[in-house]
Amino acid sequence: MDAFHSIALLYPEIKELLRDRNYTLLKQVMRDSNPIEFADCWKRFDEDERLQIFRLLPARSALKLFEILDIGDQQYLLSRLGEESITPLLENVSSPELVKVFHKMSPRQVNKMKSLIKRQEAVSHINLMMKFPERTVGSLMHPEFVKLEPRMTARQVLQLMQAIVKPGQKEHLYGLFVTDGEGKVLGSITLQDLLAAPEDETLAVIMSSVEGIKLTPDGGQDAAARLFSKYNLTTAPVVDTEGRLLGILTAKDIISVVRQEATEDIAKMVGTRAVEIDERSVFRIVGFRMPWLVVTLVAGVFISVIIRAFEPVLSRIIALASFSPILAGMGGNVGSQSATIVVRSLALGQINGHRKGRTIFREMRVGFLLGLIYGVLIGIIAYVIYGDRYHLVFSVVVGVSMCVSMTTAATMGAIGPIVLDRMGADPATATAPMITTLTDILTILTYFSLATLLLMAL
Amino acid sequence: MDAFHSIALLYPEIKELLRDRNYTLLKQVMRDSNPIEFADCWKRFDEDERLQIFRLLPARSALKLFEILDIGDQQYLLSRLGEESITPLLENVSSPELVKVFHKMSPRQVNKMKSLIKRQEAVSHINLMMKFPERTVGSLMHPEFVKLEPRMTARQVLQLMQAIVKPGQKEHLYGLFVTDGEGKVLGSITLQDLLAAPEDETLAVIMSSVEGIKLTPDGGQDAAARLFSKYNLTTAPVVDTEGRLLGILTAKDIISVVRQEATEDIAKMVGTRAVEIDERSVFRIVGFRMPWLVVTLVAGVFISVIIRAFEPVLSRIIALASFSPILAGMGGNVGSQSATIVVRSLALGQINGHRKGRTIFREMRVGFLLGLIYGVLIGIIAYVIYGDRYHLVFSVVVGVSMCVSMTTAATMGAIGPIVLDRMGADPATATAPMITTLTDILTILTYFSLATLLLMAL
Repeated sequence: MDAFHSIALLYPEIKELLRDRNYTLLKQVMRDSNPIEFADCWKRFDEDERLQIFRLLPARSALKLFEILDIGDQQYLLSRLGEESITPLLENVSSPELVKVFHKMSPRQVNKMKSLIKRQEAVSHINLMMKFPERTVGSLMHPEFVKLEPRMTARQVLQLMQAIVKPGQKEHLYGLFVTDGEGKVLGSITLQDLLAAPEDETLAVIMSSVEGIKLTPDGGQDAAARLFSKYNLTTAPVVDTEGRLLGILTAKDIISVVRQEATEDIAKMVGTRAVEIDERSVFRIVGFRMPWLVVTLVAGVFISVIIRAFEPVLSRIIALASFSPILAGMGGNVGSQSATIVVRSLALGQINGHRKGRTIFREMRVGFLLGLIYGVLIGIIAYVIYGDRYHLVFSVVVGVSMCVSMTTAATMGAIGPIVLDRMGADPATATAPMITTLTDILTILTYFSLATLLLMAL
Repeated sequence: MDAFHSIALLYPEIKELLRDRNYTLLKQVMRDSNPIEFADCWKRFDEDERLQIFRLLPARSALKLFEILDIGDQQYLLSRLGEESITPLLENVSSPELVKVFHKMSPRQVNKMKSLIKRQEAVSHINLMMKFPERTVGSLMHPEFVKLEPRMTARQVLQLMQAIVKPGQKEHLYGLFVTDGEGKVLGSITLQDLLAAPEDETLAVIMSSVEGIKLTPDGGQDAAARLFSKYNLTTAPVVDTEGRLLGILTAKDIISVVRQEATEDIAKMVGTRAVEIDERSVFRIVGFRMPWLVVTLVAGVFISVIIRAFEPVLSRIIALASFSPILAGMGGNVGSQSATIVVRSLALGQINGHRKGRTIFREMRVGFLLGLIYGVLIGIIAYVIYGDRYHLVFSVVVGVSMCVSMTTAATMGAIGPIVLDRMGADPATATAPMITTLTDILTILTYFSLATLLLMAL
């Protein structure tokens, strides 16, 4: 196994062999190589070379490579390879992996793919999974499982499995579920439990409860991730409304989901999309970012109109202009902090029911306390800089505005995502631009109104 | 199993039984209840009640409950329960779970806990894991595994496992690793492979390569998460510098890690900490947020000093003040977008080597293109609002400043995290406050300098 060739090191040689179409030598290199290494430098080969490499790889390596490639690469291979290369892939790649690619293909392409799968059961599994939209438990689950009944003994199950499991097959044995005659889930066992149990013990005795860990196929993948994380699960059963087993979800499938969900939440919070990470076209990236920047622009124009209305006070006390950026900046930052914490708490399922009000109240107090501290500070700084030119009231206006700005920013930062969530929208939607923009408007209004009220009266 | 009592529904009754010390009835309720449900309403019981409940639960339920409780609750139970309740926990809770709690306890407490563990092997496992800091692979791995040699046959391994595995024991059988005489990992097999193989086949033939999926104990948990996600792993071997097997990392342990890492990144980006989510003390939250707000404050004071220096131009063209918030706001937003995308790409391991320069250049072009679009727009708007009062040059100043601001913001948003990363710091550190603050300074400088240059010259 240590005799594996390093593809990264052999890259120039492989390129050359491909150019020379020296397939005998190439096949030999492929046979002794680790498919994982091809995945690492896959993007360095051009599309034609990728097809050639894939065709030359031994079947097992090709399968392994396919499963770790990006979805775009998978789609390319499926659409360009010949039937003789595709059929073994379609028959051996795990169903959730296939369904993910199928969701990106046209119905015509999908039908063509399905027609190449010989096992009718596999086709009906894929049909079942395709009924559920992307990002649902149903499209992620493994629909293949071994049917086990409560009366079976540990020995019988082991023998059954030895009989039906073939090398490299995709049944999911780390989690086994016991069902009744109608297919309703009664409990779970692990292979470990099975080996540990006395040989004549029945599953009814060995199995553990699955109460609280059953998933429904139309549930979101994020809720599934929460369940796996909370109960430290390795597998969970997916059941229909009658409680009948439809498939199995495994921990390893959840890891990518969690990473992807987090990335999407993060991107959404700043008003863009996660796909940006893999996007090379600057124009498309600009397209993702445009919409929320338009909102910022409209709000900004509104702010400039507000400031225009305050020109009388501004022209008398020109120094007012020099503190508006710091007020808006501090408010924006604390608002983003509150919003971010609340969005993430919602995503983690930490805020529910009566905790919503408590969360908003907590953020309000945090904002007020920070506003108090920084309000006093900025008031003193304003007095140091402008104390000789303006009345003490100027410093008070700056300080009070800071406190009001930070308090409202933190409060809105908490209310915004909670309201979005209650409306059934994604709480992460453009949190940052929305909160900073709203804060800007409120800060400017408070600041100049206070200044007009107090300073013009002097 | 469907006869389980619902703890949430029985909550008032359980409270009453606890008050009346009706232990006979309580024990009966506990015996028929699902420990998962206790975890769900654990916080609703007071600390004393929690101890009572825990003591009354059947051993297996207590163990299950303990494993899904928060780390704080686990610590409380370990520090308050008597030896007779702790010992079964210490002997049966999985090592990574124990080590996590031990890291929160004083060395004296940890030593006391270790002295209660009878199996010397378990103590040495914990000692090994405690050598690695929190958040490393070494502190997360399962140090228990079955020693398998390449000459063993499938049948021998199955028999060996039936002999050594006891119900509820914590060996990790979903992933089995084959080692040589010195303990060096040679390959991996799954129980599935074992059942599928002919009974007399040796492990040397059945096993798969582990090249590229070996982890080191001092590696970070985030790198491990990347590996699991990339290769869709269920388990990975943890090896020392000589390649000897130290333990096993499993997919289910990684899920919580990924969620936690994402939360920490998100919190860090806005200049606060993930622990805020569970924090109730407003004062402590204020403490988390203070430091980066101080940076914003200092920068803000700097900005106000800059604006003060530009008072001559500002007093002549008072309308300049009305556009500074929109310029800073748009720059800040696009800068946060770029920074967020780059931070997340770095966290996902998507940016390395030569892709760094390309990423910065891409963000620069995105910023420029957006700046061009919104610069023209804001220029037109400025002309519509102030065209009657000021020269056309005023609109040009506003438009050009917008373009410069958005270009530099996007570029800095990419450079910032990449530089932090190269310096070995966490690229997520306070991304949002840093970028918005820097953008504010540069925007104001460009804007007023341009205004002075062009408008004062008129």
